[in-house]
This record gives sequence, C-alpha cells and structure tokens, in this order.
Amino acid sequence: MTQSDKSSGQDVALIVGGGPGISSSCARLFTKSGMRVGIAARNPDKPALQNLEKTHGVRRYACDASQAAAVELLFQNVVRDLGRPTLVVHNIDGRMPEIFRKAITEADPSNALDTLRNSAFSAFLVGQQAARLMHENTPDANGTKGTIIFTNASAALKGFPLSGAFAMACHAKSGLAQSMARELMPQGIHVANVPIDAAIGQKQVDGTRAHRLAGTTVDDNMADPDCIAETYLQLHRQHRSTWAFEVVLRPWVEKW
Amino acid sequence: MTQSDKSSGQDVALIVGGGPGISSSCARLFTKSGMRVGIAARNPDKPALQNLEKTHGVRRYACDASQAAAVELLFQNVVRDLGRPTLVVHNIDGRMPEIFRKAITEADPSNALDTLRNSAFSAFLVGQQAARLMHENTPDANGTKGTIIFTNASAALKGFPLSGAFAMACHAKSGLAQSMARELMPQGIHVANVPIDAAIGQKQVDGTRAHRLAGTTVDDNMADPDCIAETYLQLHRQHRSTWAFEVVLRPWVEKW
Amino acid sequence: MTQSDKSSGQDVALIVGGGPGISSSCARLFTKSGMRVGIAARNPDKPALQNLEKTHGVRRYACDASQAAAVELLFQNVVRDLGRPTLVVHNIDGRMPEIFRKAITEADPSNALDTLRNSAFSAFLVGQQAARLMHENTPDANGTKGTIIFTNASAALKGFPLSGAFAMACHAKSGLAQSMARELMPQGIHVANVPIDAAIGQKQVDGTRAHRLAGTTVDDNMADPDCIAETYLQLHRQHRSTWAFEVVLRPWVEKW
Amino acid sequence: MTQSDKSSGQDVALIVGGGPGISSSCARLFTKSGMRVGIAARNPDKPALQNLEKTHGVRRYACDASQAAAVELLFQNVVRDLGRPTLVVHNIDGRMPEIFRKAITEADPSNALDTLRNSAFSAFLVGQQAARLMHENTPDANGTKGTIIFTNASAALKGFPLSGAFAMACHAKSGLAQSMARELMPQGIHVANVPIDAAIGQKQVDGTRAHRLAGTTVDDNMADPDCIAETYLQLHRQHRSTWAFEVVLRPWVEKW
Repeated sequence: MTQSDKSSGQDVALIVGGGPGISSSCARLFTKSGMRVGIAARNPDKPALQNLEKTHGVRRYACDASQAAAVELLFQNVVRDLGRPTLVVHNIDGRMPEIFRKAITEADPSNALDTLRNSAFSAFLVGQQAARLMHENTPDANGTKGTIIFTNASAALKGFPLSGAFAMACHAKSGLAQSMARELMPQGIHVANVPIDAAIGQKQVDGTRAHRLAGTTVDDNMADPDCIAETYLQLHRQHRSTWAFEVVLRPWVEKW
Repeated sequence: MTQSDKSSGQDVALIVGGGPGISSSCARLFTKSGMRVGIAARNPDKPALQNLEKTHGVRRYACDASQAAAVELLFQNVVRDLGRPTLVVHNIDGRMPEIFRKAITEADPSNALDTLRNSAFSAFLVGQQAARLMHENTPDANGTKGTIIFTNASAALKGFPLSGAFAMACHAKSGLAQSMARELMPQGIHVANVPIDAAIGQKQVDGTRAHRLAGTTVDDNMADPDCIAETYLQLHRQHRSTWAFEVVLRPWVEKW
Repeated sequence: MTQSDKSSGQDVALIVGGGPGISSSCARLFTKSGMRVGIAARNPDKPALQNLEKTHGVRRYACDASQAAAVELLFQNVVRDLGRPTLVVHNIDGRMPEIFRKAITEADPSNALDTLRNSAFSAFLVGQQAARLMHENTPDANGTKGTIIFTNASAALKGFPLSGAFAMACHAKSGLAQSMARELMPQGIHVANVPIDAAIGQKQVDGTRAHRLAGTTVDDNMADPDCIAETYLQLHRQHRSTWAFEVVLRPWVEKW
Repeated sequence: MTQSDKSSGQDVALIVGGGPGISSSCARLFTKSGMRVGIAARNPDKPALQNLEKTHGVRRYACDASQAAAVELLFQNVVRDLGRPTLVVHNIDGRMPEIFRKAITEADPSNALDTLRNSAFSAFLVGQQAARLMHENTPDANGTKGTIIFTNASAALKGFPLSGAFAMACHAKSGLAQSMARELMPQGIHVANVPIDAAIGQKQVDGTRAHRLAGTTVDDNMADPDCIAETYLQLHRQHRSTWAFEVVLRPWVEKW
C-alpha cells in the first residue's frame, strides 16, 4: 500500500456528535487503524457510546457543541487526555424535530435559530478549535497537518420544500467548509465536506457486530455507516497533492 | 409592453434593510412604477431614508430584523399603513465588520453567530411573514400572489478564505431561498435569490440624482444599484410560466 | 424607463434555429422593439417562418448551422441585408429523435455524434461568427457591443438517465457559453446561457394570435415562449454594470 | 480491512487513453492489486506503454477511441484476451494543441470539432461498450457489476476564457457521466467523474521508479498520478451503499 502508515499510535481523532451511526462506525474504524479516539456528545452516557468505551477504549466527553466555551474546553481536555488531534469529524445534524417537514409559515423561529446554532454554528466552533491546534502539528508523511471533516446532508446540495431552516443550516455548513478549505488547505490542513445523500437515513447499528449491508431489499437505499467511515479514513490519508474537498455519498438506488 | 401593468396603486413593496445603495434604488424605482413602498432599517433616520420619504413618499419603519417579534410587528404595521405587500425584498448583508477578512482561528464566535442571525435568520423571519401574508393575496395578471427577493453576495456562490462566518450566512440564505422557492412557487409566490458578484461593492449614491454609471474606469467593476433595482422589478413582473429563481449580477469586467 | 432606448432601427437581431416556438416569439418581440430581424433554419420555408416574413418583415435564411462554411456565409448575408448584428440567439435543440429516451447501451453512436454537432458545435460556430462581428461594434448606451444568447435545456443542469447524448450536448453548450462569457464580457459582449427547465416542452404557437398563457391547468407546466422572448430582450438591454450570465426559466409548478 | 478483497485474479481493468501519467500509474496499481490490465492508445508503442508490458504484464491495444467500430473491436479483443472488464477508465484529454489558449474568434472550427470527438464522443463510445459488457457481470462482494471512471479536467467545473472548445468537451463528458450514473447505478454499475483541478498539469513520470511527490516546492501544485490512481481504486472498491459520483482532486496549494 502506497499510503503512509498512520498506525504509529500518534494519530488522535476527535468525533463531535455521537450516536450509534456514523460516529460509532468512525470510532471503531479509527481505533482499529491505530488512532486514539475521543467522542463528544451532549449526552455521553448513551449506550452506544458506553459500549464504544468498553469495547474499543474510546474516550467519552460531554459537550454542547453550540457553546463556544464548551467547545474550547473539549479540545483542551482532548489534548490533555489523548494528545493533539490530527483528525476531527463534525458529525452533528442539528435539525430540530419540532420543525421537521413543516411549512415555512408554520415553523417556529426559535426552532429555526436552534437548528442554525446546533448545526452550522457548532461546526464553526469545532472547526475553529481544530484549526488552531492543527496549525501547530508537524506534517505527516502525506504532507498533512490534520484533517477536518464535516458530515453533511442532501439539504446541503438542494433546498427541499418544507425544510427551510435545515436547508439554511446545511448550506451554511457547506459554505463554512468551503471557506475553511480555501483558507486552510494551503496551510496543510485538509478540510472536507461529505453530504450523505440518503433519503431514508442511516442504518442504525448496535456497535458490536459487523455492519456490512446484507444486500437485502430493505437496506438498499440506506448508506452503511461503516462505509462512510471508510471514506473518512481515505480522506484523512489522501496525499496533499490530490485532496478532495467534497464527496457526496449516495446509495446506488438513490434518485438524485 | 406585453408585461401586465402593475401600476394600479395596489402593489405594495416592503424593503427590509435600508441604506443609500440597493434599497434606495429599489424604493425610487418601485414608487415610480406606481407601488406604495415601505422601507425598514435598524436606524430609519439615516439621511438617505429621510430623503426617500421626502422625495418619494416612502414610509420608514424601525426594525431589528433578527428579532422575531419585531419582524412580525413590522409586517402588521405595513399592512395597516400601506396594505398587504406583493413584493418583499430582504436586503440585509449582516456581515460583522469585526471579523472582516479574519482568519478562522481569529474570528470571535459571537461575531460569527451575529452574522448568522443578522443575515440568514432575519431572512427566515422576513420570508416567513411575507409568505404568510402573500398566501392570502389574489394572483395578479401574471399569476403571481407575491414576490420575495433575497439580495445575496458572491460568498453565496463560493466560500472565500478569511470569511468563514460570512460564507456560512450567505450560503444559508441561498439554502433558505431554494427551499422556499420549491415550497412556495407552486403556491403562486415567486421566490428569487440574487447574488451580486461585485468585488468592490455597490456604488454609494446620494439618493437624489441620476445614478447610471458614467462608464468611467473607476466605476467599471461596481454594480450600479439602479440596475439591480431594475432586475428586481423584472423578476416581480415575470409571468409564472417562466420564473427565474437565481440571477447572479456581475459587472462586465469582474473575474469569476 | 431608465433602460436606454434601442429602437433606433440600428439594432439587428439574428435568430439561428427557427420554428413556431421561442424563435417566432423572439422575432415578433424584437421587430416590435424596433430591431431588424433575421431568422435562419435548415428549412426556412416552414409556415411559421413564412408567416413571420409576411406579418413582421423578418428576413429568412437557409442554413445548416453545423457546417462552418454555411454559418460564415449566413453572417455575411445578414450583414449585407440587415447590418451588423447586435443580438444573436442560438436556439437549436439538436436532439436526434432516434435516441430519445434510449438506454446508453442502445443509442446509435452516429446519432449521438449528430446531436453534439447540431447542438454544441453549431453553438460554437454561431458564437464565433457573432463574436467576430460584435468586436467591431461601438458600445451602445448600456456599454454593450452585442449580446449572444444560447437557449438551453434542463439537461444542461442535470444529466438525466436515458439521454446521455443530449446531456453531453447541453452541458457542452453551457461550457462553451461560460468560456465565452469569461472571455468576451470584459470586451463588451454580453454572453448568456438560458436553460429552459420545462419538462413538457414549450407551447407550440401559431404565430398569429396573442400567446399569453390562459392560466388553464393544461398549460401550467409549460414555458410560454413569449415570456422567454421578454427575458431575452431584458438580457440584451441589461447595463454592463450588472450582467447576468445564466438565467434558468421554469414554470411555477415545475419540480426541480 | 472491511473492503472486500478483489485480488482473485478475476478483476479485469481496461484503461483507454495511455501515456506516462495517470494511465501508467493506474496500470501499475491495478496489476499490483491483482487485476489483469489492458491499456489502449492510438499509439500503443510509446515507451511508457512498452515498459508497462515488460514490467507489469499490461496488455497493449491500438485504438482510435473516437471511432465507433474501433472501440467495439477493442472491447471484443479485451474480453478475448483478459476477460470481461469490471473497471474501465476513460483517460483521454482530447484537447487539440492547435487551439490551446486561442480566442474564440481565432480557433479553427475543425479543431473544435476534433476536440469534441476525441474527448466527449470517445467517452460515449467507451462508456457504451463498458455498460453493455458490465450489465452481464455478476455483482461482486460490494454489490458492484463494474466501475466506469472518467478522468476529467478543471474545464469541466468552469469554462475558462480562451478555451471554448475544451470547455465544451469537458462539460460534455461531465454531462454524459451524470446521465450514465443516474441510469446505470441503480443497475449495479458505478459511474464516476473525476476532474483533476491541477493548473500546471500532471507530473510526468517515467514509469519505473516510485512516484510519491517529494514535497519539494516545484511539485507542490501538481497532482501526483499515483495518488490519482489510488482514488480510482478506492472508487472501484466502494460499497454500493455509499457510491461517490464526482470527486474533484486538487493539490493543496491550488487556487479555486
């Protein structure tokens, strides 16, 4: 394999936004690849995250990522516990369920603002702290000081009806990612935006068994979170001569 | 002229975000075209707006458009004073000067959040109130119940370095506009997003003289606000068989 | 009206690709606006075009626009008969009916190549001749030496299944238009790409009666060619401080 | 590694368009990964290709990929010699040097048409033959019947001035790829478009030594063809639950 080996134990990954889906798949794959891994969530006591700690030694952190001070503290704690992160994944959807599929005329403004804060503003806070730390890293064999990945949604690609606030938040996250990519890539930090264009949503997995999709009809239009995690690892390992900024992942049967 | 005449005095325009540039050009053109025009700003006592009142009878309103209650009250007052709006322009840039061209690592988070609130969230509030009222309008001769136009910036098209928060806000506004367009157009409300791709910014005009660019070198890469206003009026007058959602306006010499 | 008057009789428009739809609407509107108008088609003896000559004095030309020599001759003849064109519309769809909705595995390669030649390559030939002549024009009151408009289709925005060759051709036309816009706009020539995103296609009109859509259900998702022509005229009249490059026109009820 | 092993010797790759850059890197990586590899070029006797045969057992084919019959014969010969292809890479740039950076008014139309034929039309021919054969393949462990990858250029993302014909060709290739992706992905064939956004062009490599960029300044804005080949292999190995259609690869210091 021509990709440089990052399994030296020095690679530190932080996943912000934790649950049984993408973040758990990332945590498992990253630990298997030799990284020290931390995961942050509002509620770090969810069973999926407790399980990650038990089975994979993943460190759990409580953090409301829409609060500047909380995010700053999170990164301080990660550096203290695990070391300076080289891979940071922002994995917060942030959509308020109260306004799911609500007409623009019916959506409560405070829910719309919370969606913006939870999703886009927390991405700003996490991206800012990540960039500050990564600037001080030494480039690895691929010429990379660090990788910042934003999980995004199809609403980043297209503003669908009945979801104005979520379209705002996802587009905002894309705009932030693009600005950060143009600013930070020439400084050695790889920034990527990964909209998952899966209509039905991600497969919920229990975190203990293998997760490869069985190929049954029922799963066909879901994105397997283990496969998403693989793409994230590939992005982190890309040589800086050929960085991808945006990768849209989409199940084979998805209409687009 | 094949476009239907809207000069019946029934057409009511509300411009949210007011200063000597685009909003003043819009106010002048809309009144000349027979509309009753209101203009809202945090500070409605700016000389440019006082002048619009004197010379064109434009009604001024004080409004912090990032506050839900203030925006609701604004629309109530406009309906009371002028009638139900058929054309609403959201013309707030919202960029906080404190973070202009600041590295992502240096931008103050509270300024970033304020940028989101001033620009994208206020667009949500204004768009929501406009949609609520327009739903009750009778379609005009072009089949239009009303037109909602969002002034946007080149940061909506491309996330530039050193402007992460502004890229977030402008992308957010585009995402909102797209979602509203897909939701509201089939209900007879025309929604448009108009990124002005002018690097140097809009010409500042005094509101009393003619503003056609003289063609001198110094003005060549500025967008004339009077020309922008003309495009807005054309969008408002488009027949619903051929609605444009996004129009990027760019000076002839602009690099893109 | 702040737009400069072009009705001096000096404005010359050439429409390449002629039939009863967009081109006839353009020819009527342009002549009413005081332009001298020529229209070119493989078969200039179609009833719609004969009718345009009779009722509006439009000059007809026979031209296979996929042949370089034929296009060169066309422009020579137009200059001789009408004067140097200031507005050129390329209005050729070029899709070969033989491969309409055919699987990529079933489409005949020669039909695919003909689609490319008829649509994209003819756009190149027409754009080239137009640019050569317009470079010599004196800028008008809007600072414009001339306007080149490419009618395009939704396949320019999205490659749909079962239409690989048409997607190629429409995307090619967009790429050409973009390159020409970046090259020619700073030289005073306005280039525009106008994808008509109408699924059912344009209303066929007979060229003699008024064409405003009646608002009946059956017409609701068709783009009225008279409205398209109005947008073309507005693009031609835009001041160079605020040129639009791409305008997508879409009926209000269209899904996108 | 959770990706299924494709090193069984059954995987057959065909690279159309061969030289010392991307195609040689692909040929080396694919053979190392256990595939049987064929490479086609107008002139298969180039030293780089002869070398690939000697050192890696790559099979060489002469083919003018802009000729339908030649492409059909190529695929027949590959099936006969190596077996049914599961990975096909179209790697033809097709730009005619005669019109490189020529004004639209100066470009020879026959060169423009040749650019379209060499690039976009050959992509159609190659994609068509690939799809025909892959439809008959049995899905592998990732649920994939085959992968078709189009190498593309930054002119696919943006029409630059002075390159109208190349912008046409690259946009056309993107349109074709998109249409094929929407048509073929739900049938189990992964289609990908990979614009390489490298201004200076790809590093020319001699095909015998390791190619990892040394990190010296001179190489910094070139895309390493070995890294591009890795991305192609990753795309081929993606599980169908998370297929990427478009990946733009760009050196870290590239302006975009």
